[in-house]
Formats: sequence, structure tokens, C-alpha cells
Amino acid sequence: MVDIPQHVVIVGGGFGGLYAARSLAHTSVHVTLIDRRNFHLFQPLLYQVATGALSPANIAAPLRSVLSRQKNVTVLLGEVKSINARGRRVVLADEEIGYDVLIVAAGVRHHYFGNDPWEQLAPGLKTIEDATDIRRRVLFAFERAEREHNPDERVKWLTFVVVGGGPTGVELAGALGEIAHYTLRNDFRNIDLMQTRVLLLEGTDRILPTYPPELSTKAKHDLERLGVTVQTGTIVTDIQPEYVTAKTADQVQHIDTHTILWGAGVQASPLGKALSEATSVPLDRAGRVIVEPDLTIPGHPEIFVIGDLANYSHQTSKPLPGVAQVAIQQGRYAAKLITARLKDSAAQFPPFHYNDLGNMATVGRASAVADLGRIKLSGFIGWLAWLFIHLISLVHHENRVLVMIQWAWSYFTRNRAARLITGAAADRPIS
Amino acid sequence: MVDIPQHVVIVGGGFGGLYAARSLAHTSVHVTLIDRRNFHLFQPLLYQVATGALSPANIAAPLRSVLSRQKNVTVLLGEVKSINARGRRVVLADEEIGYDVLIVAAGVRHHYFGNDPWEQLAPGLKTIEDATDIRRRVLFAFERAEREHNPDERVKWLTFVVVGGGPTGVELAGALGEIAHYTLRNDFRNIDLMQTRVLLLEGTDRILPTYPPELSTKAKHDLERLGVTVQTGTIVTDIQPEYVTAKTADQVQHIDTHTILWGAGVQASPLGKALSEATSVPLDRAGRVIVEPDLTIPGHPEIFVIGDLANYSHQTSKPLPGVAQVAIQQGRYAAKLITARLKDSAAQFPPFHYNDLGNMATVGRASAVADLGRIKLSGFIGWLAWLFIHLISLVHHENRVLVMIQWAWSYFTRNRAARLITGAAADRPIS
Repeated sequence: MVDIPQHVVIVGGGFGGLYAARSLAHTSVHVTLIDRRNFHLFQPLLYQVATGALSPANIAAPLRSVLSRQKNVTVLLGEVKSINARGRRVVLADEEIGYDVLIVAAGVRHHYFGNDPWEQLAPGLKTIEDATDIRRRVLFAFERAEREHNPDERVKWLTFVVVGGGPTGVELAGALGEIAHYTLRNDFRNIDLMQTRVLLLEGTDRILPTYPPELSTKAKHDLERLGVTVQTGTIVTDIQPEYVTAKTADQVQHIDTHTILWGAGVQASPLGKALSEATSVPLDRAGRVIVEPDLTIPGHPEIFVIGDLANYSHQTSKPLPGVAQVAIQQGRYAAKLITARLKDSAAQFPPFHYNDLGNMATVGRASAVADLGRIKLSGFIGWLAWLFIHLISLVHHENRVLVMIQWAWSYFTRNRAARLITGAAADRPIS
Repeated sequence: MVDIPQHVVIVGGGFGGLYAARSLAHTSVHVTLIDRRNFHLFQPLLYQVATGALSPANIAAPLRSVLSRQKNVTVLLGEVKSINARGRRVVLADEEIGYDVLIVAAGVRHHYFGNDPWEQLAPGLKTIEDATDIRRRVLFAFERAEREHNPDERVKWLTFVVVGGGPTGVELAGALGEIAHYTLRNDFRNIDLMQTRVLLLEGTDRILPTYPPELSTKAKHDLERLGVTVQTGTIVTDIQPEYVTAKTADQVQHIDTHTILWGAGVQASPLGKALSEATSVPLDRAGRVIVEPDLTIPGHPEIFVIGDLANYSHQTSKPLPGVAQVAIQQGRYAAKLITARLKDSAAQFPPFHYNDLGNMATVGRASAVADLGRIKLSGFIGWLAWLFIHLISLVHHENRVLVMIQWAWSYFTRNRAARLITGAAADRPIS
């Protein structure tokens, strides 16, 4: 039996944490939401920032502003370092905050499979800074190619390698193909953009391996139409500043390039490990917390783990995927179970059940694949479905309208107005 | 007599350089535009980015995209280090580029009057990175205040000092007053935002000293209505991480604060000095190049200096102000004179004459002062005039429409959606 909770602490303002906080409106608990950043990020559209179609503010909503009217929520900017499960306190660098119920929704980071030096050479796409860094690298490569007199070097600047054929890799590769062959077409004088090579390398035998095979085939076809070379069965074995080494079944491949993007792997936030040290909860190989059917951890009904950080294996044979819908539904579930405890009706509460609404990935301009269970969409219809579902999910109404207008404009003009080379490194003289 | 020019090199893609390049369309010359950045920046709206109302991409247009249809222009991303005037070449780090005519439009930077360490403590507002840095500092100060238990420290986090009462300082101070007293009003739980202090310190006896006195008085009144404390006759004598020292006629003032913004002084780009070393052209005290009545420099009719980098004193007793209109008109003039040389009709060409269209500055939400010669506007009417003139001046039509929508939304909701704490420093844990 659990005491009536009064103070709920939520760590992480992503989809899981934010929806948990919102679902606790109109209850008697006080909620403290702690995040390292001051905004909620709509990660599914991050690749659009990386490729210059949208601005960071289009896909990020200040947490304070999203929650300003919900008076039972306090937002704190800070980083939780560890958890004192016995004393029921989260530990920040300069203070500790007590809780009655803790919801850990700290998400995942990139994972380079033990090859940490690769991180500097092949950035992944998880944060706003990742996105503007990728944008800078891609645009800078075309600028350097334009000024390059050595033809071999020029080819290296016009070669882009995307590692990993999951949704992020597919979306990045598609957008790169579109930029090279359409958006920038008239912008350069010395280089021929049709010589741009975009390579998508995937280790398994098809891209989008978690989707139905027919959608993988459609996505491959759409990418090829955008000038992307798709190589499956290809494992990257080394990444260096000016080349990538990859292994296929029968050969070793050496690819000269200055621009490598990482869409291959993620691992759990270090908070998973901290939680395991504090409570002995088991972790899976990716560092995710293995949770109970009610999303709590063994022996600690007051601690929930939700979203990408949670490994929930009670519904199907494999863990639920790390997508926004799982996090949202888990955040709502945790809030409902807490509310039931307030009313002393938690005993009959059913276990968490994920209602799969389907999966989607875009493939360049105006094409997408959508797996909605019995319905499988692709091409323009898939893209319209993708557009509709993503737009209605944007947290802020303002963003929704502005993003729609910006997109409509980008769509009809094939323009990407936000292609700015910015950041500390961009201000460094390049020549 | 000058030879018929075939290749015009323009250094700098600000207002002067961009309008010169555009005005050379439909001529026989080839134009090379060199800039350190890949975009043209609409600097008059930079303070809107610094205060979270607009995104960087709203006020920046990729130079390649602006000039993509003008086939006689090549855009190069690079930094000109020096000028070989005898050999008629500009020198970049890795190559030299020859010219027949050179237009130097490299602009100005911040100036801390010999107190270089102040730059780290009190950032100015000239680049996109400056704007996002200021945005980060301001938003972060409110976040720290929310988490601060020591009341004295909290006051320091809620005190903002703006140094310099010119247009930039007035616009920043007004926007800060608005943010504290309106935008963020419902966002915090532990702090009372009405305790926020915004101080605007100006050395002379009135703010906006280059405007007519009645507009200075109106602007001061509008700022005070937004909760800004305006102190004239106040010279800053020291800036330290946690305080500012200022001197008035009869006392020395010590102001505790964590957030200091610089709107006080600018100096010429180092390219002015490089040009002077190459050609012996005289510079003024701010390092600006003193130009001839036709904007060229003595002994070098093939070198023009325009925009903020030029000191043009042939029209009135003092140099023309460093505003966009001067740069635009000078860029057009230089292009016309070059075109006249192509037609061998340059001998009768009149000297440059600045057509003063007026000056404007905004003071917080929906209020501005405009000095249009005989017509002087202030308050809401001034703001509408300001809005209209700035919107129609935005280089890209897309930006114009999107910025207008974003502004209309901000205006009616007093919201500032782009208030993101981003950048390398933002990703560093703060607690």
C-alpha cells in the first residue's frame, strides 16, 4: 500500500514527462517538473531543422509557457545527478528535492557502440544543438566544394554518408537528396550539384527494419528517386575525419567524405544507471530500466519510469519502441494511476497497455511511408497523413499554424529559408 | 581615367554590399561577393531575436538564395584578411582574388573603449550569435532567480543593466521591460516578476541623442511606462561579473547585477586599417575610412568604401550615421558609378548625396518614435510606421509574410515563442 502522494517530481520534459504533468492537472498533488533545458522539443521534426526547412523555435515550446496556466506545476531548470530512493529525494548539483512519487522520463542519447571518438566525426540528431550542428556541416560542405580547386577534394565535400537506415537516417538522407538536387540547384556557380552523392548505409538487409517489408521497399525506391544510394547489409567499421570504412558480406569499402551523419544507435540516459544503483532495478543491454506492468520498479511503487528510458516487455515479445506515442501513453497512464491512488482505487487498476496507432517516416519531399496496422500508406498520401498527424501533435497552437505556413511555402517553392550557418564554429574564419 | 572594369569584388553582404551587387544586375561586369557568413542579416530586427520574439531565420536570408537568379554574381564564403591595392587583389587565408573594382562594405563591430575584458561580461548585439547569447543570458537569469533561495542573489538575477541609450539600447531595454512585466508574468512560481529592474544608462543628457529632443522625451516616458529606469548623464566606469560601477555628476553608483548588455559603441572592421596600410587612406578615430565625394579613396578610383565602414563628411558637418539607409543608397551609388564607367560617362557623374528618409526606434510593445524630417511620430502611430517600413524592407518575401504573422500573434498574445535557451553553453548542466 502506498501513502496518499502530495508531491510528484517528474524528471524530463519530453513527451512522457510533459503528458504526465498535464494529466495531473485538476488533482490535489503538486508537481515539480525538472529538465536540463527550458523547452519541450518536438523530436520527430528535428531533421527538418537539421536540413534548414524549419527554425528551432518552430519545433520547441518553452516548458514554462506550455504549463503556465497549470498552477499545480513548478518548472525547474536543472539536472538531476542521482536519486536517493531511500530518502525519496532527487539530487541536483546544488540542492535536493523531496518527492512522494517520482516519474523518471529522462530519455536516451546517441550510442556509438563503444566507438566514442566517432561522436565528434559523425554527429547524431537528438538535440537542437545537434540539428544546427548538422545544418552547419552540410551547408559548409557545399560552400567548401564551391571554393575547392582540387577535383578529388571537391568530390569529398560533395559526398554525404548517413549511417543507419532507421527513420532518422531515412529522413536525413531523403532531405539531403532533396537539398542537393532541388533546393540549392541554382545557388552555386563552380560546382555541379548533380554530382552530389548521398549514401545511406544500413547493417541489416533492409532500411526501416521495424516496418513491414513492403514499406521498406517503397522507401528505398523513393530515396533512389531523390538520388540517394541505399546500401543494406553494410556495417560501418571505422570513421575517420576524411573517410568511412564499411564491410559488406564479401568486401571492405572505403568511402572518402568530409560529412558523416549518425542515425544508428541510442542508449539510455545515465539516470537509468543511477536509478539501478539506488534501487537494484535491472537494466537491459541498452541501459533501459526494465519496468513492472504498471510502469513502476520492483519494491518501489512510488517510482515510475516511462518513455524511451523504460523497457516495457509485458505486452509483446520485444520491448515497446522508443517513439513519441509510447511515451505519451505511458505519461498519461502514470498520471491516472497516481490519481487512482489519491482516490484509494488503485488496487483494481489494470496494467499499462500500448494502443499502437502506427508508425511513419518521411522520405524527402512529399513522400512518406505509414504503417497504420491494416492500412499501409506510401508516397504522397502517406506524406499527407504524416503531415496531418505531426501538425496536430505540435504542442503549441501558434507553432502549428506557423509551421504549416512555412511548410506550405517550402513545399511549393522547394525552398529552405532557414539554411543558416550559425554557432560558435561558424563565426570562426574558414579561409 | 579608369579602365573598363570587368570584375567587381564586393567584400561584405550587409545592406551596402548586397544592394551594390543587386544594382549591378543587367551589366556586363562579373561580380564576386565575399562574406564571412552565408546569409544577409536584417540587423534592425536583431533585438527581436535577442528577446525571443523572432527566430534567427526570420531576419536572415541566405546570400546564395537572394542572388541565385542573378547569374553575373558568384557568392564566396570566406574572410578577406588584407588588400593588395597595387596588384589589385584581395587576400584570403588560402587564395587571392583579383579585381578591377573593389567595393569594401565590411561594416563595424562592438567597441568597448579600450576595455576589452568587458566584452565577455556585457555582450553587444551585432550578430546572430550575439542575439542568441543575449537571449540565453536573459532567460537564464530568470531561471536562476526562480531557483535562488538567497534574497540578495535573487535581486541580482532580476536586475538587468543596459549600457548606452542609442536605438539598440532603447530597443533592448524596452523589450526587457515588456518580457518581465507581461510575457513571463504567469510563468514563474517562486519569484515576483514585478520586482525585475531594468536600468538604461546613457552618458549624455538624453537617450536617443541623435534624434530631436521631443522624441527623446517621448521615448523616455514610454520606457518608464514599461518599468524601465532611465538614467542619463551616467558614465559606466567598470564592469565586473556581478556588478557595474557608474559615475554621475555628483556620485559614484554601484549596481549589483548578473546581466549586463552593451549598446554603447562600435568601431570599424579591421579591414579599414588593412586598407589604410595598403593605400595610405586616412581613417577617423573610430577606424572608419574617410572617403571622397564619390565614395572612392584618394588615388584609387577603383576602390569604393561604403556603409558603416565609410566616413562620408561631404554633405553635412558630421559623418553620415551608420544606418541601413545610408548603406543601401551608397551601394546603389557605387553600382551606378561603375555602370557609368562602363558607358564612359563617369566624368559628369555627381557626388554621392544621402536622401534622409528619417530615423526610427521602437520602445517596447506597440510604441515607437519616428523622425521623418518635418513629421515626428511617436506611440502606436510611430510603431505602425516602424512596422510597415521594416516589413517592406525585409529582403525575402517569405520572411515578410511569416514575420508579420508571427508579430501579429506576439502582439495580441504578448507571447514570445522563441524564448529558447540554446547553444553550447546552454547544454552545460547549470545546477
